[in-house]
Amino acid sequence: MAEHESHQSNDSPLLETVSLFQGLAPAERQEVYQAAHHRAVEKGELFFVQGEEAHTLYVLTQGRVRLNQLSPEGEQVLLRVIVPGQLFGGVAVLSGTAYPAAAEAVVPSEALGWDGETMARLMERYPAIARNALRLLAERIQELQERYRELATERVERRVASAVLRLARQTGRKVEGGILIDFPLSREDLAAMTGTTLYTVSRILKRWEKEGLVEAGRQRLLIRSPHGLVALAEDLPPALEAPS
Amino acid sequence: MAEHESHQSNDSPLLETVSLFQGLAPAERQEVYQAAHHRAVEKGELFFVQGEEAHTLYVLTQGRVRLNQLSPEGEQVLLRVIVPGQLFGGVAVLSGTAYPAAAEAVVPSEALGWDGETMARLMERYPAIARNALRLLAERIQELQERYRELATERVERRVASAVLRLARQTGRKVEGGILIDFPLSREDLAAMTGTTLYTVSRILKRWEKEGLVEAGRQRLLIRSPHGLVALAEDLPPALEAPS
Repeated sequence: MAEHESHQSNDSPLLETVSLFQGLAPAERQEVYQAAHHRAVEKGELFFVQGEEAHTLYVLTQGRVRLNQLSPEGEQVLLRVIVPGQLFGGVAVLSGTAYPAAAEAVVPSEALGWDGETMARLMERYPAIARNALRLLAERIQELQERYRELATERVERRVASAVLRLARQTGRKVEGGILIDFPLSREDLAAMTGTTLYTVSRILKRWEKEGLVEAGRQRLLIRSPHGLVALAEDLPPALEAPS
Repeated sequence: MAEHESHQSNDSPLLETVSLFQGLAPAERQEVYQAAHHRAVEKGELFFVQGEEAHTLYVLTQGRVRLNQLSPEGEQVLLRVIVPGQLFGGVAVLSGTAYPAAAEAVVPSEALGWDGETMARLMERYPAIARNALRLLAERIQELQERYRELATERVERRVASAVLRLARQTGRKVEGGILIDFPLSREDLAAMTGTTLYTVSRILKRWEKEGLVEAGRQRLLIRSPHGLVALAEDLPPALEAPS
């Protein structure tokens, strides 16, 4: 594992696949890489806490990170899961605000970090980075609008199915018997992500187990029938709406 | 009123107050202005329709625009209200997708428009524009995350109060007796914006009228006690939770 909090001098093929740096020549990526700060954190540690003034924009290079937001009501809302190659902390740095959520490593994780001024200088020098950042933020807005629409207009079972499929696309791993959400996911997380109660999520998961769609353990979700979940997310057949 | 679809040659003090062009020198703003396309549309007309390939990023210079999204269930969801100085259509242009919503002028409106390539060229030439655009998108993301959190965790009366206050901040006009939402706003709009039903919105508005908080007409909302609404949005006193 790389050392904590050090500047790296050798190039990394990592940045090649990071959308933020798409379109840069290898020598340009090398410059971007050398301006980065390398940080490794242990499982359960935080890259930053909620409310801290945003200083660093990170790209995850290894591991898995949860962005957790504590609501005024004291509920932990899972905002996003970050997988390698993705940006986090960037929105707060770019808008000059505090981090709106905490970034917790759920497995040992590593990231490259740039402070706001360094990133502004790199963007001025390489307009492709600014263009990529704009595209990434625009895509995030579209995803948020989509999730908001789901939450405002769709029934809860469809929302839970959509949330599970979204996580599967991001962190799913093909295993014997189906697709495993490769990420500790609690029923509380699913409830917070879909604006419903723990009781409702438990009831829905129980029904899905009976129907052979999923196997739900503690913090573990195996999708046995992705097609079945897609059918639910797209259009709920009336037969499934009967109270269980 | 300015002519339809023409290029302008005289400078405009308008761009001075537009956040997207903050930090530009007058001569630079002049160049940006001359690259724009001027468009005026009548009340009820659209700047663009939902699903149309995004070509133009607009800044509203006069009037008022609704961004309406038709959900797969056939419901019209009011996504945002645009007031002069604000950007619209930009997210779709920057992410290279179709417009996710229609942009309807609710009063005669005028806007400046730049196609995606022109804007990319201007941003490359003036990095301040790209920086401003990043900040604006980052702020939009924070607002969406806030609204999503509200929808996922707060009771419906608080959400309706927050939505009304958000509209008041954007389009409120001080009049005799309170603050008027200067924008035709239906109960259906409020229901769609807060993920609830028309019935619930009507019930809440009726209760608020009885308590002297608002006066609700057809497509018209006068806030008589902004402080009362803020109190509701921040923390609902239990007394108001009793069914009416």
